[in-house]
Amino acid sequence: MTTASWRDPALPAAARVDDLLSRMTLQEKTAQLYGVWVGAATDGDGVAPLQSEMAADHDWDELIGHGLGQLTRSFGTAPVDPALGAQALARAQRRIMAAGRFGVPAVAHEECLAGFTTWGATAYPVPLAWGASFDPPLVEEMGRRIGQDLRAAGVHQGLAPVLDVVRDPRWGRVEETIGEDPYLVGTVGAAYVRGLESAGVVATLKHFAGYASSAGARNLAPVRAGVREFADVTLVPFEMALREGGARSVMAAYTETDGVPASADPGLLTELLRERWGFTGTVVADYFGIGFLQSLHRVAGSPAEAAHAALNAGIDVELPTLKCYGTPLLDAVRDGTVPEELIDRAARRVLLQKCELGLLDEDFAPEPTGPIDLDPPANRDLARRLAEESAVLLDNPDALLPLSPDARIAVVGPRAADALAMLGCYSFPSHVLPRHPEVPLGIDIPPLLDAVRAELPDAKVTFAEGCGVSDPDRAGIAEAVARASEADVCVAVLGDRAGLFGRGTSGEGCDVTDLRLPGVQGELLDALLATGVPVVLVLLTGRPYALGRWHGRLGAVVQAFFPGEEGGPAVAGVLSGRVNPSGRLPVSVPRLPGGQPWTYLQPPLGLAGEVSNLDPTPLYPFGHGRSYTTFTWDGFEGTEPRIGTDGSFELALTVRNTGGRAGAEVVQLYLHDPVASVTRPDVRLIGYRRLDLDPGEAARVSFRFHAELSAFTDRTGTRVVEPGALELRLAASSADVRHTARLELTGPVRRPGTDRRLWCETEVSRPR
Amino acid sequence: MTTASWRDPALPAAARVDDLLSRMTLQEKTAQLYGVWVGAATDGDGVAPLQSEMAADHDWDELIGHGLGQLTRSFGTAPVDPALGAQALARAQRRIMAAGRFGVPAVAHEECLAGFTTWGATAYPVPLAWGASFDPPLVEEMGRRIGQDLRAAGVHQGLAPVLDVVRDPRWGRVEETIGEDPYLVGTVGAAYVRGLESAGVVATLKHFAGYASSAGARNLAPVRAGVREFADVTLVPFEMALREGGARSVMAAYTETDGVPASADPGLLTELLRERWGFTGTVVADYFGIGFLQSLHRVAGSPAEAAHAALNAGIDVELPTLKCYGTPLLDAVRDGTVPEELIDRAARRVLLQKCELGLLDEDFAPEPTGPIDLDPPANRDLARRLAEESAVLLDNPDALLPLSPDARIAVVGPRAADALAMLGCYSFPSHVLPRHPEVPLGIDIPPLLDAVRAELPDAKVTFAEGCGVSDPDRAGIAEAVARASEADVCVAVLGDRAGLFGRGTSGEGCDVTDLRLPGVQGELLDALLATGVPVVLVLLTGRPYALGRWHGRLGAVVQAFFPGEEGGPAVAGVLSGRVNPSGRLPVSVPRLPGGQPWTYLQPPLGLAGEVSNLDPTPLYPFGHGRSYTTFTWDGFEGTEPRIGTDGSFELALTVRNTGGRAGAEVVQLYLHDPVASVTRPDVRLIGYRRLDLDPGEAARVSFRFHAELSAFTDRTGTRVVEPGALELRLAASSADVRHTARLELTGPVRRPGTDRRLWCETEVSRPR
Repeated sequence: MTTASWRDPALPAAARVDDLLSRMTLQEKTAQLYGVWVGAATDGDGVAPLQSEMAADHDWDELIGHGLGQLTRSFGTAPVDPALGAQALARAQRRIMAAGRFGVPAVAHEECLAGFTTWGATAYPVPLAWGASFDPPLVEEMGRRIGQDLRAAGVHQGLAPVLDVVRDPRWGRVEETIGEDPYLVGTVGAAYVRGLESAGVVATLKHFAGYASSAGARNLAPVRAGVREFADVTLVPFEMALREGGARSVMAAYTETDGVPASADPGLLTELLRERWGFTGTVVADYFGIGFLQSLHRVAGSPAEAAHAALNAGIDVELPTLKCYGTPLLDAVRDGTVPEELIDRAARRVLLQKCELGLLDEDFAPEPTGPIDLDPPANRDLARRLAEESAVLLDNPDALLPLSPDARIAVVGPRAADALAMLGCYSFPSHVLPRHPEVPLGIDIPPLLDAVRAELPDAKVTFAEGCGVSDPDRAGIAEAVARASEADVCVAVLGDRAGLFGRGTSGEGCDVTDLRLPGVQGELLDALLATGVPVVLVLLTGRPYALGRWHGRLGAVVQAFFPGEEGGPAVAGVLSGRVNPSGRLPVSVPRLPGGQPWTYLQPPLGLAGEVSNLDPTPLYPFGHGRSYTTFTWDGFEGTEPRIGTDGSFELALTVRNTGGRAGAEVVQLYLHDPVASVTRPDVRLIGYRRLDLDPGEAARVSFRFHAELSAFTDRTGTRVVEPGALELRLAASSADVRHTARLELTGPVRRPGTDRRLWCETEVSRPR
Repeated sequence: MTTASWRDPALPAAARVDDLLSRMTLQEKTAQLYGVWVGAATDGDGVAPLQSEMAADHDWDELIGHGLGQLTRSFGTAPVDPALGAQALARAQRRIMAAGRFGVPAVAHEECLAGFTTWGATAYPVPLAWGASFDPPLVEEMGRRIGQDLRAAGVHQGLAPVLDVVRDPRWGRVEETIGEDPYLVGTVGAAYVRGLESAGVVATLKHFAGYASSAGARNLAPVRAGVREFADVTLVPFEMALREGGARSVMAAYTETDGVPASADPGLLTELLRERWGFTGTVVADYFGIGFLQSLHRVAGSPAEAAHAALNAGIDVELPTLKCYGTPLLDAVRDGTVPEELIDRAARRVLLQKCELGLLDEDFAPEPTGPIDLDPPANRDLARRLAEESAVLLDNPDALLPLSPDARIAVVGPRAADALAMLGCYSFPSHVLPRHPEVPLGIDIPPLLDAVRAELPDAKVTFAEGCGVSDPDRAGIAEAVARASEADVCVAVLGDRAGLFGRGTSGEGCDVTDLRLPGVQGELLDALLATGVPVVLVLLTGRPYALGRWHGRLGAVVQAFFPGEEGGPAVAGVLSGRVNPSGRLPVSVPRLPGGQPWTYLQPPLGLAGEVSNLDPTPLYPFGHGRSYTTFTWDGFEGTEPRIGTDGSFELALTVRNTGGRAGAEVVQLYLHDPVASVTRPDVRLIGYRRLDLDPGEAARVSFRFHAELSAFTDRTGTRVVEPGALELRLAASSADVRHTARLELTGPVRRPGTDRRLWCETEVSRPR
């Protein structure tokens, strides 16, 4: 028997895929374009308990007779031992390989945002915490470990990261984002992608594009944005993560911008993504998103029309069903409505990726090759480091923190004793347990209360819940006040409960109308402050909340977002002083609960004070965070301040830790453009570097600013570098400028290509 | 002496202006392009008390030596007797005519939104109330009377109407708008324009364009909008008021959309407005708006650059100063930076308008020709009728209204006894008195309390203020509760205080972070409801407020906006039953205070219920309003339901008043587009007709729907009529559909020109 050339690993992938495509029937090619929700039970047959009803929709034998493109979340939503889950996935793959004529296995994909979203896997801090760390190398390491765990379990594609830029903090999915600045999102997101891809797992950039701008912060609502905002804010992180991260898949967003649904937009998914940016991977639908073209967008009158619109736009794979790309699409090709070339185009991309992943090789074996432990000590160490780096000390005016080791401490609040308080919506326990509380956690997640007790064994720690996260019952406040009154210090642990669609106060579908703390937690805080006992506020939240009501009255404020399974010990370490806080805000903290949308990327019109009685300044600005040590910034130097519109400029300064303990400073570089042909944000982040410094230690950090970093989209929709004055501001936050370099860009307006500089290079040297 | 040809009224205006321009120096032409804040005192010299300091900035003789284009608000801000003010204005004109070489007087302009904004002039209801009336002919009559009053006083141009479409009800200037639907704004706004222009006064459409969409509802903030939203929502009323209303001036908005400031946008002010729409009048700056190009937009580096950008974009006149169009522009032309052709272009437009206004005629005399009474009985009658037609009865579940004539009535609340509660920010008293409370009102404005006492002489009416509009003091609530407890019914009169820039809770610069009732008024209402005495809530507000907290507990709710000087008697008439309420909501009333921006023009994505825990439905929908009588809607008929994309369709029905008293029904026609190439609002208003009906009387109303009314802007930015299915819904509100006609548009996609149908014609017959 001769081996078909598509099986020959010596041939180029394109040739192999051409050969395979030429052998396939229309139905076989179409079958590569959809996935199904596997729901495999641990015995490899039938549907596992708690799995989606999606899985029960199909006759399995009929389904896979012509092959199958994708396997959706075979681990995802059941408390299946990962080792047994991997075996079940392998059996499903064997069945698919045996059923089709070509024996091509499916791409298995899983959610993996803050860790493999399966039972028993490490739950890392959420993306807002990655943003707060300002530490891409550490995030890259996390991405690599997540990728390795996915790979070990037989998963090929991870549906992460989320590169949406926060435009309205009320949106439920803010916890899944890295922050409100596209440069921060792009640099940290690209690091995650590099990590995941380095493990051989396909990273999926989502949601392409605009979702975070949904009007009124509803999970799904039209996006109001023009082409310049879209190009200069929304798209930037995607460009960075494709170019610098090497992501091989992109997920089309549910949303529509100015009337055009992303999933039916060839301008976005083909002209921009592939033709201009040169992307060659796959574009996948968000779950059920193709059907939404009919039901929620009404740009299609039937599943077949929806399939046609999506395929034509450039979506290669429908997830997680075959409602549109199954029979409706097949029939539409057969009756001539949809050209077969569109099927071929998408199938070629899917098969090319399968080829790269080894899925076309004869020796492909889906069985796991080693023991599977998805939460080993090395993962936990990493989760701990990231949690420690991402806690943001917002305020500590009287050095109430660190706490005395023998203090009487009243730990109160609805988030103090709950393990789930540490996790975002896309970690398995928060994803599944709110619906199925009988499921065991699967991993060890010390709540903050336990961690404080362990961290401060000589302290007298008492506890009262005070109130629930969101229920209106105030009965418990009295006990919390009593505990606080007996203590030297009260640690109020407030925040969100992450969950899906109404099961939480943060998470997908858990949008809010304003930025008040949920439920009666604000009243609990009022009551605690009324005792006169100093209060440390610890926030375990999926978004920033308005804190203006308590400004100047809190002893200290720690904003920890959802810090993951090791978040309890990490935050306890900040309280005890074992950990010196070094996180910086990836999102502004507002004064008032209303007035959204607002982020720090305001042009001057949005900052003018006298024209409205709404104060546009945040309580704590983007980039803000305090430390237990002190730093000086000096030795500022810059190179020749006249550069061409294709030139570059270097600036440097020395940061010294002048306090008594090790700590980290984050040097931030902001661009201010005094006059431009369109309005520009007053400042925006264009570079940063985190510096870990021992007591007395100094580091000299230099930034190489290339003029292309000042590029923006002009009135004609073209990205340009305009000559004229610029200011580069070295700052400890977006509002705390330490040194300013004034530049003059000379020469003609430049139109940088798709290879334009996206990153500001930094170097660090440690003088003696 | 030969008369120069520019003085010859027999010649065409263009020839006269060409001649005059050819005689003018650069400085004389430039002087036509700016105005100054006159501030004339009643003796015609110096600056009047309370007038802006702007007026003091100039050496009057030097200023007018080369002529002067505009006189800004010579009446506006001082409590000057209008007859004396008119004489002062005439003296100022004589001085200008005497000083310049050509003796050309200035265009005198004034604010006149809800009436001539001067002391002693009629204060009509605010535009939201015009919208609520759904009665363009009545609004046209008001416009005519305002125009006649302006004209009698020597004013040539009125800076009204506001055609911004509400996109976020938190915005302070919502009270100045007609509502959240572009068709309603366009039809009512065009009626106002027809009225004003019919009196020979230049109407100024503002703010062109986008201002109402300012992010976060701040008075000034960037607008996030794409080209389709801009074309299909924002621009529509301007197109209608230019085409159907004949407005001769347009004011450029302060704002920027997607990075491009309106005042520096040739695409908007020249290509669209003049080249596509054929506008030939003047474009004026919003006050100080040209300078904002430097200070608040940073698209210009100096006043000269700002002047150049604005002039090039198409702004002909700077208001109210000469900061940019004065010396900076003159110098820039002299040094060759700005081409003199731009000066000529703008000066020609200004002089053409002056020619049309008779200001170039030798016999022009600025002196008033008759007695000046700006608040005669005919004005007051009209103000009353409009106030009566615009009160919206939101709810009256148990027929608590009308009140019994001999009831014990507790009238409570901070808006009950204050005359200013009736007025919006752009009526003279609210505009000036909050800064200068010593100024007398100038007109009679009965507060609602007085009007209720007059209206119901046999009732026992008590009063307590309860609380202030916005101050946090709760001390007065107890007395209000006591009054309510002694009464049969409590009328709670709550709402806003209109004012400028922080002096009010509604008005320019008085934006809010959410839609809670101001101050502690919500707590007052809670306390009143706790008495168990039935409560009628009367809202005198500049925006809709969230009422969900009290839904189902209020005896009746009357939403009256700011009903003007006769608003007290009008609303009292609704309470007594003398007036049968017939207003319909021009803005949705929300359930919850947060969650903005939201209006009813949602595509289906914004209405999907399960995807977010935020309920997208309003408490009272756009178009809603109740009556004391009842109506039947029947005899529905439509013509052939297959029409071409250039065809039209007629539908008709009969409305009968089946109750015992006269009343008005508003038949509303909404368009639903089941499938389109871009997402469309689920429904939008495309026609309406107000029907006044005696008891037992019937009227047959027919609508002629032309396919062009279904046009929208497609993905290429072109306005198209697409073939396919449509639904025309005859409804009593946007959510209360009574009859649906299903149409099929056949034929090719059409691209209607700039003459496309904008209005749905209606006809009414009264069968016996």
